[in-house]
Amino acid sequence: MRKTSVLLAGSLVAVGAVLAFSGPGIAEMAKGGVLEKGVEGRSDKWAEKYPNQYNSWKQTSENDSITDMIAKKPQLAILWAGYGFAKDYNAPRGHFYALQSNVNSLRTGAPVGPDTGPMPTACWTCKSPDVPRIMERDGELEYFTGKWAKYGNEIVNSIGCADCHSSQTGELQISRPYLTKGLEAIGVDTKKVDSEDMRTLACAQCHVEYYFKKTEWTDKDGNKKTAGVVTLPWDNGLSAEAMEKYYDDINFSDWTHGISKTPMLKAQHPGYEIYSTGIHAKSGVSCADCHMPSKKEGDETFSDHHIASPLATDDIVCVGCHDQDAEVIKAVVEEKLERKEQLMEIAMDNLAKAHLEAGKAWEVGATEDEMKDILTDIRHAQWKWDYSIASHGSFFHAPEETLRLLAVANETAQQARLKLIPVLAKHGAAGFAAPDFSTKEKAQALAGVNLAKLVAEKEQFKATLAKEWEKQAIEKGVLSPDTRKGMSDNSSYSK
Amino acid sequence: MRKTSVLLAGSLVAVGAVLAFSGPGIAEMAKGGVLEKGVEGRSDKWAEKYPNQYNSWKQTSENDSITDMIAKKPQLAILWAGYGFAKDYNAPRGHFYALQSNVNSLRTGAPVGPDTGPMPTACWTCKSPDVPRIMERDGELEYFTGKWAKYGNEIVNSIGCADCHSSQTGELQISRPYLTKGLEAIGVDTKKVDSEDMRTLACAQCHVEYYFKKTEWTDKDGNKKTAGVVTLPWDNGLSAEAMEKYYDDINFSDWTHGISKTPMLKAQHPGYEIYSTGIHAKSGVSCADCHMPSKKEGDETFSDHHIASPLATDDIVCVGCHDQDAEVIKAVVEEKLERKEQLMEIAMDNLAKAHLEAGKAWEVGATEDEMKDILTDIRHAQWKWDYSIASHGSFFHAPEETLRLLAVANETAQQARLKLIPVLAKHGAAGFAAPDFSTKEKAQALAGVNLAKLVAEKEQFKATLAKEWEKQAIEKGVLSPDTRKGMSDNSSYSK
Repeated sequence: MRKTSVLLAGSLVAVGAVLAFSGPGIAEMAKGGVLEKGVEGRSDKWAEKYPNQYNSWKQTSENDSITDMIAKKPQLAILWAGYGFAKDYNAPRGHFYALQSNVNSLRTGAPVGPDTGPMPTACWTCKSPDVPRIMERDGELEYFTGKWAKYGNEIVNSIGCADCHSSQTGELQISRPYLTKGLEAIGVDTKKVDSEDMRTLACAQCHVEYYFKKTEWTDKDGNKKTAGVVTLPWDNGLSAEAMEKYYDDINFSDWTHGISKTPMLKAQHPGYEIYSTGIHAKSGVSCADCHMPSKKEGDETFSDHHIASPLATDDIVCVGCHDQDAEVIKAVVEEKLERKEQLMEIAMDNLAKAHLEAGKAWEVGATEDEMKDILTDIRHAQWKWDYSIASHGSFFHAPEETLRLLAVANETAQQARLKLIPVLAKHGAAGFAAPDFSTKEKAQALAGVNLAKLVAEKEQFKATLAKEWEKQAIEKGVLSPDTRKGMSDNSSYSK
Repeated sequence: MRKTSVLLAGSLVAVGAVLAFSGPGIAEMAKGGVLEKGVEGRSDKWAEKYPNQYNSWKQTSENDSITDMIAKKPQLAILWAGYGFAKDYNAPRGHFYALQSNVNSLRTGAPVGPDTGPMPTACWTCKSPDVPRIMERDGELEYFTGKWAKYGNEIVNSIGCADCHSSQTGELQISRPYLTKGLEAIGVDTKKVDSEDMRTLACAQCHVEYYFKKTEWTDKDGNKKTAGVVTLPWDNGLSAEAMEKYYDDINFSDWTHGISKTPMLKAQHPGYEIYSTGIHAKSGVSCADCHMPSKKEGDETFSDHHIASPLATDDIVCVGCHDQDAEVIKAVVEEKLERKEQLMEIAMDNLAKAHLEAGKAWEVGATEDEMKDILTDIRHAQWKWDYSIASHGSFFHAPEETLRLLAVANETAQQARLKLIPVLAKHGAAGFAAPDFSTKEKAQALAGVNLAKLVAEKEQFKATLAKEWEKQAIEKGVLSPDTRKGMSDNSSYSK
């Protein structure tokens, strides 16, 4: 039974009240910790005490196939031109592969030593239980300082037990301080978070929107350093509009667009935020209720850590609450997906054209003044598009908010395009039509992505430094030798 | 308990299956008829046998206030320029006033005799239980032949008992043949319709999309006549896209737009169709389950005929199925309404601009060839907008389909606007901006509506012919003398 909870009774959810919920999942009691102090990042070290949970977690390795989203939706390369996502973006594999996908991604580049490579340390933050281990060992600000490669031989275990559970007690806990700060910013008393709340908040540690906040600090030796601290932009609320205002107010941009020169925002994966607007959240249904239903193995009842779509198997968890047949439920969900796909395609198409038309306008001599409003439209349009679809399953968690945002995103992109026509005409480019971006090759060429070079560098990195990292981690005793044995190594570029 | 039904198990609903439903409303047994043969249109004649149903029906007279939608949303006058709706369009009052609102509306004009006036007889079709009475007496084709004023002294009772109930048995029945034809067109065996199905189909007799199909016929005396037969455009299905195709295929338009010259479609009130796409319909919840819940008066349990929003009172019917508090439910519904309002405003604004920009294009010399695609876009955009919001409560009955259609409608309107810019520029009207349509006065002026003249003519009609109709109907014994006593006579133009 879902009881009234600090989370849903608070400011998080507009309806301001929580409802009786009798779901298929129940919080189980922890059977104690695995370490007296510190963080145990190696999930296999938890297996003896929690064999069922461990074995079900390991089943996430079954979801190992790569869907190259840029091949599927070439518009994405245009939308993200000048940013890492234009290089490589795949539909997610299971939690078992989160770390490997991060290492394999062309986005994390090909560092050759601890101080090289395009990305900061913050890029590990959602990928591994070694992150709280390192934060505890080195301090939060030191963790957020430096290049991604700095921790290549320390952050080596994929999302696992210690991401959500205390190594001392086994209880669910928030291991990422930025979530605690984010919740406090919206008025949640995190001391009153209970085990029921944690069935959602454990997931919200990663399935949220965030940015890397530039933070100057001085280490214990007096060295001045700059950290890029993962920060949730929640001060004004969790809606797309509230976060947009947050970023606008601090004049933040993730990057400057490679074609339109727009100061862009990249939504990460605001799953918790958009879920909060949906009817399941408002009915007190937690993430774990649907994604981690109770299972029985012998005498033990445990929550299934094989996290995936609740519709991935025939034995769907929905029927624990809903009277309908599984086939009916699947058809309803399928229709939600189709509606989202339709509006998403429309918005992406117009966003891509807006970028390309803006790029042409610059090329033919448009002025900053002529382009200012247009770029603001593009920024806001793409932000709302990205917020609405970047998290897993938003089309289901919050179908109405997803459709609303896609519609507003598209309208804003179209406003930009309407404004671009006279600017193009004024500078002699009347009737300009955006070039063809209908394949990954064409779109990446327009976005200036040299895929062959990026892949060659990555392969070199994987054959050298990445291998070294693994070896060192095993020697240090932070990675179990068998963890990656026989692990599939799929990527968008693997042959 | 909702049982598997011919309707929902059939082709009407995509999910193709029906679910156990235990709702707050149950079908009650009829206590017999009120006439041996024919149709009793006077609801007060049913009151003796059905006092609770009659008295609750009469409570619909409490909803007598007029919301002038054109004053509230002046864009509407632009969207409907050249058509009756640009003259007068109000939010609905209770069933008790349906006939009076039809007589009062500026849309039905000011006839001076049985053969004058702008509208055909078909315009009575949803307003009165005298319609099935006349259809039975004169035949369906004769009923659909001639001007609206032809039946002014016969069709005199507002929506009431005989619209839905057999005068012989009191049972629910379909009194409008076009619904039977429409259902058969989508493969429903109407002989298998049961009393549970009728709890939705009784409403679907009026709350549907239809058009007046021009039908040549010969009466029993050999006279060649032309009827405008109410017809449901369901041959391809109930979705907005399916009906759009139906109308496109037969090259049908309700009117040619007064500003943009677009061959337009007017959605009537496709409530049944859009409800069918929503989760309540797919869960087997009928219209009556929510809008006509069971009530108790003394020993009798009866269905409440005071049909209104289920949220109109504090004692909301939703809690019969849902565990949530009424306040929570109301907040969830309010949020659905806000999302719809946002997308509706965006779409209306761009549609209005598209019409005005197209009007300007014609004015400066655009050719048929240049305008063809643009007008098709405007036609399709406005159809989808209208389909999505013309029925009562679509934002609740089918929030996702409503948002999807509003988004697609707006995208299509914006495509028209993008195409209009170069056409305007080519003909020397570069940079044309649509004139201000922010008030009813401004919008109706642009739409060519001479409101003062229409009101004066209507007042004259109401003081003369309309009064005569009432007197004649009482003399004929088809209207009870007290029916309109003390009845409020609100209209958008009443002083």
